[in-house]
Amino acid sequence: MREIVIGGAQMGPIQKAEPRTAVVERMLALLEQAVAEKCDLVVFPELALTTFFPRWWMEDQAEIDAWFETEMPNAATQPLFDRARETGTAITFGYAEKTPEGRHFNTSILTDKQGAIIGKYRKVHLPGHSEYDTERAFQHLEKKYFEPGDLGFPVWRNLDAWMGMCICNDRRWPEVYREMGLQGVELITLGYNTPSVNSQLSDEGLEKRLYHSELSMTAGAYQNACWVVGVAKAGDEDGHPLMGGSIIVDPDGFVVARAQTEGDELIVHACDMDACNFGKTTIFDFARHRRIEHYSRITSQTGVVTPE
Amino acid sequence: MREIVIGGAQMGPIQKAEPRTAVVERMLALLEQAVAEKCDLVVFPELALTTFFPRWWMEDQAEIDAWFETEMPNAATQPLFDRARETGTAITFGYAEKTPEGRHFNTSILTDKQGAIIGKYRKVHLPGHSEYDTERAFQHLEKKYFEPGDLGFPVWRNLDAWMGMCICNDRRWPEVYREMGLQGVELITLGYNTPSVNSQLSDEGLEKRLYHSELSMTAGAYQNACWVVGVAKAGDEDGHPLMGGSIIVDPDGFVVARAQTEGDELIVHACDMDACNFGKTTIFDFARHRRIEHYSRITSQTGVVTPE
Repeated sequence: MREIVIGGAQMGPIQKAEPRTAVVERMLALLEQAVAEKCDLVVFPELALTTFFPRWWMEDQAEIDAWFETEMPNAATQPLFDRARETGTAITFGYAEKTPEGRHFNTSILTDKQGAIIGKYRKVHLPGHSEYDTERAFQHLEKKYFEPGDLGFPVWRNLDAWMGMCICNDRRWPEVYREMGLQGVELITLGYNTPSVNSQLSDEGLEKRLYHSELSMTAGAYQNACWVVGVAKAGDEDGHPLMGGSIIVDPDGFVVARAQTEGDELIVHACDMDACNFGKTTIFDFARHRRIEHYSRITSQTGVVTPE
Repeated sequence: MREIVIGGAQMGPIQKAEPRTAVVERMLALLEQAVAEKCDLVVFPELALTTFFPRWWMEDQAEIDAWFETEMPNAATQPLFDRARETGTAITFGYAEKTPEGRHFNTSILTDKQGAIIGKYRKVHLPGHSEYDTERAFQHLEKKYFEPGDLGFPVWRNLDAWMGMCICNDRRWPEVYREMGLQGVELITLGYNTPSVNSQLSDEGLEKRLYHSELSMTAGAYQNACWVVGVAKAGDEDGHPLMGGSIIVDPDGFVVARAQTEGDELIVHACDMDACNFGKTTIFDFARHRRIEHYSRITSQTGVVTPE
């Protein structure tokens, strides 16, 4: 038994005008609740420090850059790192990262129980578009404000387990889970900001969108025999609703904890990393069953090529 | 609208003693029912002509070979091909194939409406084991009796759509759907013989096993924006229960038809191939969103390699 008590710290909406200091106060409150529930690890959402700014069209680079962090920790987030270290709690959260070279990424970090950053991931699968789209009900400009992640899908040893991260739209791509599964991942954490409305199909409906999110995470967990923790930023941000549905999924693909609200809400589950062993040594024993000689299109071509 | 009316022809148990001629009679009855319901395509299960013989330990090669077909069509199956051609119905079913060179595969074929075989697939992901396993509640000797398929995951034009096949355990591997998705597949058909009991985890239970099967197929459909039709051989074969749960899944990942029994049962749905277009041109527009530079482990390594 290698138990990690995991807190999924769903966050309610962050309005455009809400400063990072106020957001970090809310994260600290969730952290205190997690400490009270003896969590070893707390998972916060994607772009946890600000509103989901890629919905806004901006042309002024200084206005854009104001949403980005140039260092981590920084003044606004230092209290979170301090309290995590004091309480011996590992944390992971997402933020917009601007590098010293001026590159922009949608990033998440992972700390150990001593508050040191031991892992960084940069979102690979950026959804949306890069030009103003007059056809959409609202904009989704991740392809404008970020470049695709350049770090791949690394896995780290933390809390006596193999842990990896992805972010939001990454969770819909089976390649993501498999890249980490091939490194023996036992726990994948991810945050998301998913609009409740499909900007290109307004009648799709929330229920379908929650189903797609959960379907992707449960399949990824089952097919790689790993825990998956998906944590939303939810609720109404300046008139733009984000869906909730934060879940913890076991290595058998079953949801074992689920958020009930669209606000700040902690879901908790004691996750046994040894529960991964059965799947990894039987039906999904990759070494015995995978046939890479028949997978070549997956890495040799990006888009669809129909037969001649 | 490119509508294909699809019949999923689930088959009840086939006992070890049941001859192929009797099985083909049952298949013909299902075909007649499908014709009455105006089906364009009828999907039969994996190893549709015999009992699921890989549960039996056999050492005599002649005894083994008796379960295999050396040509297709052959005397036993000719009536099925004839009636499919007469009624203008495309069919697909699975059988054990022995080639002229003496190679053994778990195979499925696909015909056009004129009764000509236009596609052949050989199962790539063989589950189970190749030696007698004293630890298991019963044997699952696909790795003994078959070699892994050597044809990859081809896609064919049929009924004005891009169609592909896989077989049984293949459906649990996201690489399978993606290989076909990268060829623009719009309809994937598969048959399965899945024991109701996990031979290595007897208390897993039928409900979990049906969930895993459905999870894999719905995720594969959603993530590649294609129809998936999964058809079981079900019921009690000489004391060995097989699960049912045949389903038709739409390109949004929703089950639109589901078998209710563990016997011979036809499920029917009118499937619009154009329903694939939305997913293929938005969230799963591979050319725009996939990042193959980060997928290299998927084709460069078979088993797990944990970080240094």
